[in-house]
Amino acid sequence: MAGKKYIYDFKEGDASMRSLLGGKGANLAEMSSKIGLPVPPGFTVTTDACKAYWTQGEALLDEIMPDVMAAVSRVEPQMTGEKFGSKDNPLLFSVRSGAVFSMPGMMDTVLNLGLNDDTVKALAKVSGDERFAYDSYRRFIQMFSDVVLEVHVDLFEEKLKEVRESHKAEFDHEIPADSLKKLVDDYKEIVRKAGKDFPTDPELQLRLAIDAVFRSWNTPRAITYRKINNIPGDLGTAVNVQAMVFGNLGEGCGTGVCFTRDGSTGENVLYGEYLMNAQGEDVVAGIRTPDPIAQLEQTMPAIYKEFSDVAKRLEQHYKDMQDIEFTVQKNKLFILQTRSGKRAAAAAVKIAVDMYNEGLIDAKTAISRVMPDQAEMLLHPQIDPKAKYKALAKGLPASPGAAVGEVIFSSDEAAEKGKTSAVILVRPETTPDDIHGLHAAKGVLTSFGGMTSHAALVARGMGKPCVCGAGMVEIDLKAEKFKVGDVTVNKGDIISVDGTKGEVIVGKVPTIDAHFSDDFRALLELADKESKLEVWANADTPEDARRARDYGAQGIGLCRTEHMFMEADRLPHMQKMVIASTKEDRVAALATLEPMQKKDFAGIFEAMEGLPVIIRLLDPPLHEFLPKIPELEKELSSVGADSPRGKEIKREITRANELHEFNPMLGFRGCRIGLVYPEVFEVQVRAIISAACEVSKKGKVVYPEIMMPLVGIQEEMKRLEEMTRRIAKEIMEKEGVKVDYKVGTMIEVPRAAMLADKIAEHAEFFSFGTNDLTQTTYGYSRDDAEGKFLFFYVDDGVVDVNPFHELDRDGVGGLMKIAVEKGRSVKPDLSVGICGEHGGNPSSVVFCHSIGLNYVSCSPFRVPVARLAASHAALGTMK
Amino acid sequence: MAGKKYIYDFKEGDASMRSLLGGKGANLAEMSSKIGLPVPPGFTVTTDACKAYWTQGEALLDEIMPDVMAAVSRVEPQMTGEKFGSKDNPLLFSVRSGAVFSMPGMMDTVLNLGLNDDTVKALAKVSGDERFAYDSYRRFIQMFSDVVLEVHVDLFEEKLKEVRESHKAEFDHEIPADSLKKLVDDYKEIVRKAGKDFPTDPELQLRLAIDAVFRSWNTPRAITYRKINNIPGDLGTAVNVQAMVFGNLGEGCGTGVCFTRDGSTGENVLYGEYLMNAQGEDVVAGIRTPDPIAQLEQTMPAIYKEFSDVAKRLEQHYKDMQDIEFTVQKNKLFILQTRSGKRAAAAAVKIAVDMYNEGLIDAKTAISRVMPDQAEMLLHPQIDPKAKYKALAKGLPASPGAAVGEVIFSSDEAAEKGKTSAVILVRPETTPDDIHGLHAAKGVLTSFGGMTSHAALVARGMGKPCVCGAGMVEIDLKAEKFKVGDVTVNKGDIISVDGTKGEVIVGKVPTIDAHFSDDFRALLELADKESKLEVWANADTPEDARRARDYGAQGIGLCRTEHMFMEADRLPHMQKMVIASTKEDRVAALATLEPMQKKDFAGIFEAMEGLPVIIRLLDPPLHEFLPKIPELEKELSSVGADSPRGKEIKREITRANELHEFNPMLGFRGCRIGLVYPEVFEVQVRAIISAACEVSKKGKVVYPEIMMPLVGIQEEMKRLEEMTRRIAKEIMEKEGVKVDYKVGTMIEVPRAAMLADKIAEHAEFFSFGTNDLTQTTYGYSRDDAEGKFLFFYVDDGVVDVNPFHELDRDGVGGLMKIAVEKGRSVKPDLSVGICGEHGGNPSSVVFCHSIGLNYVSCSPFRVPVARLAASHAALGTMK
Repeated sequence: MAGKKYIYDFKEGDASMRSLLGGKGANLAEMSSKIGLPVPPGFTVTTDACKAYWTQGEALLDEIMPDVMAAVSRVEPQMTGEKFGSKDNPLLFSVRSGAVFSMPGMMDTVLNLGLNDDTVKALAKVSGDERFAYDSYRRFIQMFSDVVLEVHVDLFEEKLKEVRESHKAEFDHEIPADSLKKLVDDYKEIVRKAGKDFPTDPELQLRLAIDAVFRSWNTPRAITYRKINNIPGDLGTAVNVQAMVFGNLGEGCGTGVCFTRDGSTGENVLYGEYLMNAQGEDVVAGIRTPDPIAQLEQTMPAIYKEFSDVAKRLEQHYKDMQDIEFTVQKNKLFILQTRSGKRAAAAAVKIAVDMYNEGLIDAKTAISRVMPDQAEMLLHPQIDPKAKYKALAKGLPASPGAAVGEVIFSSDEAAEKGKTSAVILVRPETTPDDIHGLHAAKGVLTSFGGMTSHAALVARGMGKPCVCGAGMVEIDLKAEKFKVGDVTVNKGDIISVDGTKGEVIVGKVPTIDAHFSDDFRALLELADKESKLEVWANADTPEDARRARDYGAQGIGLCRTEHMFMEADRLPHMQKMVIASTKEDRVAALATLEPMQKKDFAGIFEAMEGLPVIIRLLDPPLHEFLPKIPELEKELSSVGADSPRGKEIKREITRANELHEFNPMLGFRGCRIGLVYPEVFEVQVRAIISAACEVSKKGKVVYPEIMMPLVGIQEEMKRLEEMTRRIAKEIMEKEGVKVDYKVGTMIEVPRAAMLADKIAEHAEFFSFGTNDLTQTTYGYSRDDAEGKFLFFYVDDGVVDVNPFHELDRDGVGGLMKIAVEKGRSVKPDLSVGICGEHGGNPSSVVFCHSIGLNYVSCSPFRVPVARLAASHAALGTMK
Repeated sequence: MAGKKYIYDFKEGDASMRSLLGGKGANLAEMSSKIGLPVPPGFTVTTDACKAYWTQGEALLDEIMPDVMAAVSRVEPQMTGEKFGSKDNPLLFSVRSGAVFSMPGMMDTVLNLGLNDDTVKALAKVSGDERFAYDSYRRFIQMFSDVVLEVHVDLFEEKLKEVRESHKAEFDHEIPADSLKKLVDDYKEIVRKAGKDFPTDPELQLRLAIDAVFRSWNTPRAITYRKINNIPGDLGTAVNVQAMVFGNLGEGCGTGVCFTRDGSTGENVLYGEYLMNAQGEDVVAGIRTPDPIAQLEQTMPAIYKEFSDVAKRLEQHYKDMQDIEFTVQKNKLFILQTRSGKRAAAAAVKIAVDMYNEGLIDAKTAISRVMPDQAEMLLHPQIDPKAKYKALAKGLPASPGAAVGEVIFSSDEAAEKGKTSAVILVRPETTPDDIHGLHAAKGVLTSFGGMTSHAALVARGMGKPCVCGAGMVEIDLKAEKFKVGDVTVNKGDIISVDGTKGEVIVGKVPTIDAHFSDDFRALLELADKESKLEVWANADTPEDARRARDYGAQGIGLCRTEHMFMEADRLPHMQKMVIASTKEDRVAALATLEPMQKKDFAGIFEAMEGLPVIIRLLDPPLHEFLPKIPELEKELSSVGADSPRGKEIKREITRANELHEFNPMLGFRGCRIGLVYPEVFEVQVRAIISAACEVSKKGKVVYPEIMMPLVGIQEEMKRLEEMTRRIAKEIMEKEGVKVDYKVGTMIEVPRAAMLADKIAEHAEFFSFGTNDLTQTTYGYSRDDAEGKFLFFYVDDGVVDVNPFHELDRDGVGGLMKIAVEKGRSVKPDLSVGICGEHGGNPSSVVFCHSIGLNYVSCSPFRVPVARLAASHAALGTMK
C-alpha cells in the first residue's frame, strides 16, 4: 500500500505502540520521546512492514527504502558530524529485530552496518584507532555474512582462531591492526568462495539487513521459541535501525546488561554485568566472563551514578523491574534498550510483593506479575540442607532449584533422552540452537558465561536449575565427558546441580520440597481476596491435612480411604472379608476394621477442625487387596496344600480368579462394591459418623462429607444416600450428638454428567474425578495410553497437551459443564468441585472458575499454585 | 364420592369403555349391547371403584353395595325365574376380575356365588340333579375359601382326593351326591378350623368376593406379571358379576375355549378345546385333557354351527383374532368372554398378513399386530431337520421353537439357575405361581394340560418352546426326576424340547436358525414402506453379506477387518508386522497381506453390488495378534533359545511384554494404531480402493465407505481423512477408475460425541459404536461388569434393563443426540447410523428413529426384527 507509514523515528513513538513498533522499538521510542534518556538516535521499521513483506516480498523493500533513507537523513543531524556512507566521518548503524514479545537471542542482529573498504579508513582516522576500525569491520563482515548472506559463521571463527593463535592472543583485542586488515581480506575471500557478493554500498547493506530481519522471523529456532512460549506466529517483527555507539573504543568504553533488581532473588539492588572495551554481544554471548555491575562504581563512579538514576527512573516509569542494555562510549552513557526483566519465580514473587508494599503497584497488578506456572517453580525441589555431600565444582547460581539426572552433552540427544529419563544438559555455553535441549533437560551446567548468558536467561525463564560459568569444568564434547581436576564424569553418569548455590555434585543428592516463603504467603493472601474459587486439598492422613492447611487449603476435597484397608495391621482382615463367602463372614471381618478406621477419621477431623473434609468410600477393585496369584501359588507350594494356611491360600486363589478382570479400571469397584456388598460401605459410614461424633464431643466442629465413588446411575446414589442417612441417624441418636454431614458423589463417568439432574436429587455435592472422567471420556487407560501412544500424540501434535495434565475443555470440560448445569437445575446451591489431579493445574483451575465450580482440590504441594491460578482466573489475567 | 356411578350393566357399556370396565367387562358389554350375542346377563363394578377402594377401603363397599344389589335386581328379570338368594330357584353368579390389559390367570375368580345350605337344596330341586348341586356347592366353598377367605386350597384338594380314592373315581363326576354332601360338611369344618366364618348370606358373599377381587390386584403374582409385561400398577381392576350358566349340568352341557384362528400357526381355522359336562376352569387349569373343538361338530352340530357363526361375527367385529370362552347349558350356547387372542409369533405374522389380504385390516394395522419382540421369536432356533434323533416322549406342540437345557423341577430353582445356564422347566402343570420359573427357563415341558393350559399360554406369550400334556412323562417331584418307560431323567440332565412338533429328546439335539417365512417377508415389505430408518447389517464376509441382503439389509453398516489379519495364512505376516522394530519391516510384512485383503474386499463388494459397504479399519490391540506369553515361553523351551525360531520367539515375548496393557479396552487400539503406525491403515485403504476399482471395472457399482475406529480427537480424523484421500486418489488415477467412496468414523467414545462438530469437518458419516460407547459412558468393561455386578443390578432393580441389551436413552442416548446435532450443525446431510449390537434391539431402534438416524445396522439374523421395529417407530406404535 503506497504511502502507508512504515517508518517511525524513535522520537515519534511511545510505549503504547508496542504491537506496531515491537517491544524494543516501543521502549526505545518511550525512552527517547517520553523519558528523555540518552538513547542513540534511530528509527523503527514497523511490524506492519514485516507483514506486508510476507505478501509483497522484495517489492515491499523497493517501496520503503526511500523512506528508510529519509529517516537516516533525520538521524544524521542528531550526531556529531557522522554521515551514513561518509568517507570522512561515517555513521554506522545497528540493525536489530524487535518483536512484540521479547524473544531473547531469537532474532538476528547486525552491528557496524555502513562499513566498507572506504568508510573503514575514515573510521580509523576519526577514532584514531585503526585496530578498532578493522576489528569493527571484520565483526561486521562476519555478522552480516552469517545473518544476511547465510555464510556459516564457523568459517570465520576458524580463520579468527588461526590469527589469534598465531599471535598467542587470549582475546581478540590483542590482535594487531595489520593482522585484522589481513583478516578482513580473508573474510572477504570466504564470502566470495561461498558464492556470495559482499555489498559495499551502505544503503544496499541496510536494505539487505532489514530483509534478513524480516526473514529471520521464520527461522526454525524462532518458531520453536514461539511454540514453547505460545507466541502467535502472525505478529511479525519490527526492525530497529539505530546509530552505533561503541563500547570497544578503548579506555573509558564499555558495555553492559543490568536488571534493576536481582532477577534471581528479587532483592532491590542493581544486578548486572559489564565488560570494559567490548561490544554488547560479548556480554550476552558469554564468551568473556564479565564483571559484576557493582564494580562499575569503582571503575567509573560518575557513569555508575548516572546509570543508577536511569535505572530508578525506568523502573518508576514502567512500574516494573527493567532489563537494561547500556554502552559507555568515551565516558558517555548510552541506553540501548530496556524491557521488563525476566526473573526467577522467587524473584517474581518478591518483586511483586515489594513493589506492592512500596506503593508502586496495586494488589491486582502484583498478582498479575506472578503467573501460576512460575509460582510452580517455587515448589521445585531443593537440595536437602541436611544432605552430606561434597561439591565437585562451583559456578554461578544462574537459576535456582536442584536437579538430578544423567549427563548429556548434546541438545539433540537431551531432547530425545529427556522424553524418558531425567537429563542434565552440560555445554561449554548454549546458543539459541540449544532451545530444545534446554527444554528437555531437568537442569543445565555450562562452563562459560555469566548470570545473563543465554543459558542463564533461558533456564530462569523455564524454571530449570542452572549453574553457569563453572570454569573448572573442562568439557570434552567429542569424547562426551568432562573433567574437574582428576575426576572424570562420562555421558550417562548421574550428577546433581544446585542452581541456588551454583554447585555441581557427582551422583544423586537428596532433595526436599521448596520453602514456602513469607513473600509467597503474602502474595497468596492478596490472591485469595480476588478469587471466587476456593482451594481445597487432597489428603489421606492427618499429616497431609496439616500440611494442606499450612499451604492455605480451605478444606479436604478428597480423603481416600484405601490405605485404611491396606495397612499391615488391617490387610489380613480385609483379605478375610474379600474371600468370605457369606455376608456374615464379611461383616465379622469388617467389624475388626471399624474401630481402626474410626481412629483414622478422628485424626483427620481434628487436623481439619472447622473445615470440611470430603471422604471417599472405598474405590479400588477388591482383587487389589489380595496377593497376586503367582505369589499365592508360590506360598501354597511352600506351606503345602493341606495345611490350614494352605487351605486359606486355595480359597484366596479361587477368589482372586473369580475377581480377575480384563479391564479393572472399568470393573467391579467404587460404589458398585457398595451396592453388591452394602456392608463394606456401611462400616465406613459408621466409622466416619462415630469419629465425627467423638471429635464433636471434644468441642471441635467437624464437617464430614461422605462421597460415593463411580456413581453413574440414579438408583446407586439413591440407595447409598438412604443407607448413609439411616446409619448416621442411628449413630447420632445413640451418641446424642448432631453432626453437620453431607452426602455427595464423584462425577467420574460420562453417564453421571449426563444424568446429573437425576443424581443431584440424592446428592448434596458433586466432585469431578477428572482422572477417571478423562479416561472414560477419551476411552484411555492412563496406565496404557501415556506410554503407548499418548506421548506420540503430544510429540507429533495430534493433541496440544496431555489431557491428563491439562483438563480437556471441550470434551471432559463439556461434560463437566453439562453436569454443573443439570445438577444446579435441581439443586441451585449444589456444591461442586474437582478433586482430580487437574485441580492443581493452572489452566484447568481457570476453566473450573469459568464454569462456576465452588472449589478445586489438589495435592497439598500444589495448593499455592492453585490459589494463585484461582485469583488470575477471577482477575481475567489467565484464560 | 357418594352418587358416583360405579356400576354398569353389561347392556350399558361397550368396547370403548375398556379403561373403566376392564377388558373383559368392556367385551361383555360390547357383546351384549352391540353385537347381540347370547351372553349371560350381569354387570361390571368399575376400575374407578377399585381405585377408590385403595383409599377408602371397606367404606367404598358400604357405599356401592346398595347399587350392586340394585344391579342384581336388574339381572333377575332377564333370567327364567331365578332370583338371587331364592330358596326356590336361586340365581348364582360368577365374580371375576377384569383388568384393562388381559392378565390371564392372574386375577381370582369365584363361581357359583349365592349357594348356601338353603339355596343348594333349591338348586338340587330345580336342576333335578342333587349331585350337580352339591358338587357346585363344594366347588363354591373351595374357591371362595381359597380366594376370599385365604384358606389354603390344598386342604380341600386333599379331602377331595380322599373321597375320590374311597370311590375309586377317576373324575369328580363319578362321586355320588351323598359323598359330596358329606364333603361339603368336611369343607365347612376345614374353614372353621382355619378360624374363618363361611358367610351364608348371598349378599355378604357378593360383597366379600368383590372385596377379594380388588385385593387380588396386589398379590405378588399379579405384581410379577405386570412387571414382566410392563403394565402400570395404578390401573386397577374391574369386577364382573355375571349370572352363572352351567356346563356341568350333565347331558347337552359343556364348556370350552376357542381361538378364531390357530394361535400357533395362524391358520384360519377354529382352534380350541372343550370338555363335556364341565365348568370353564376345568379347561383352563388343564386337569382333564379336553377334546379339540372340531369334535364338537360331531357331538353337537347345531351348537358347533352357532358357535362358528359367533366366532366369525366376533372376528369381523373386532377385526382381530378372538379368544372366546363359551358354555353350553342344556344345549343352549352362552358366550362368556371374548378378547384378542394371544398367538405365537408365526401365527401373529400369518394372521396379520392374511387379514391384510382379506381386506379386514390395513397395512399399518397389520404391522401394529406384530411387535418386534414377537418377530424375534420367529428367529429362534429350531431343531435341525437333518438331525438324527429319537424322541423320548411326545406331547402337545404348545409353543414353537426348540430349546436345550438342564432339567429343573422347581420354578424357584429355575429362576436361580437360569441366570447362569440354560434350563428346561419340567412340571406336571404350571400355575400363575410359576411365572418366574417360566420366565427364566429356555423351554417348558408339562405332563398335564392342553394347548390352552396355563403353561401353553404363557410360553407362547414369552416365545419359549413348550411341550404340554406329555402324559407318558411320569414326574416325581420329590425325587427330582422323571421317567418315560424305563428311561429315567434326573435333575441336571440335558434334554431338548421341540415345541414345534411337541417332542422331548434326551441330550442335546442340533438346532438351526428359524425359517424366514413368506408371510414374514410380506409383512416386512409392508413395514419397509412405513419406515424412515433403513436397516443395514453387520457382515464381515461375502457369505454374511449375501445373507444380510436376503434378510432385507440395505447396506453393510459394519464390515470388521480383523479376520483379514487373523486367518491362518495371514497371521504369520501380521505377527512379523507386530514384532518389527522398523517401519520398513512393518511395511514389508504388510505388503504380503495387501493382495489377500484386496481379494476379501472384492468378494464383499460383489456380494453387495449397488449397496453401500462400511469397512472399519483395524480395531483390536496389536497384542491380540501375538500368542499369549505362557504359550510362547513353552514353545521357547521346546525349540531352544538359540535356534532361529527361538530368537524370533524371544522377540515376540519382548514385544508382547511391551504391548501388554492393564486395560486393553482403553488402550493402544483403533485409530491410535493408525496414527502411530500409519502403514497399517494405509495398506487397508489401498486394498479397499484397489478392490473397489477392480470390481468397478467389471461393471458393478460399489460404494465403499471407510470407517475409522475409536476417533476422539479432531486431528486424528483430519490425518486419517487426508491419508485416505491421498491414497484413494493415487490408486484411482493409476487404475483410471472413479469410485464413489466415503470416509467417516465411528462414534464410540464420549469425547467423539462432545466434539462431533469438529470431527464432522473431516467425516462424511458417523456410525455409533454403542457397545464401546456404553462401556465408556458407564465406565463398564462389559466382560467384567456383566458377570461381576451388572447381573445383580438388573436383578435387584438398580437398573431396569442391561444397557448392553437395550440402549440407555438418557446417558448413552443423550451423547448420541449431542453427536447428531453437532455433526449435522456442520454437515446437514451427514449420514448417521448405529452399528453396535443395539442396532437389532427394538427399543433401541425406536430411539434411533427418534433422534433422526439414517440407518441401524445389526447382525443379519436380526435384520427382520429391526425392519419391523423401524416401521413401528415410524408408525408411533412403539415408543
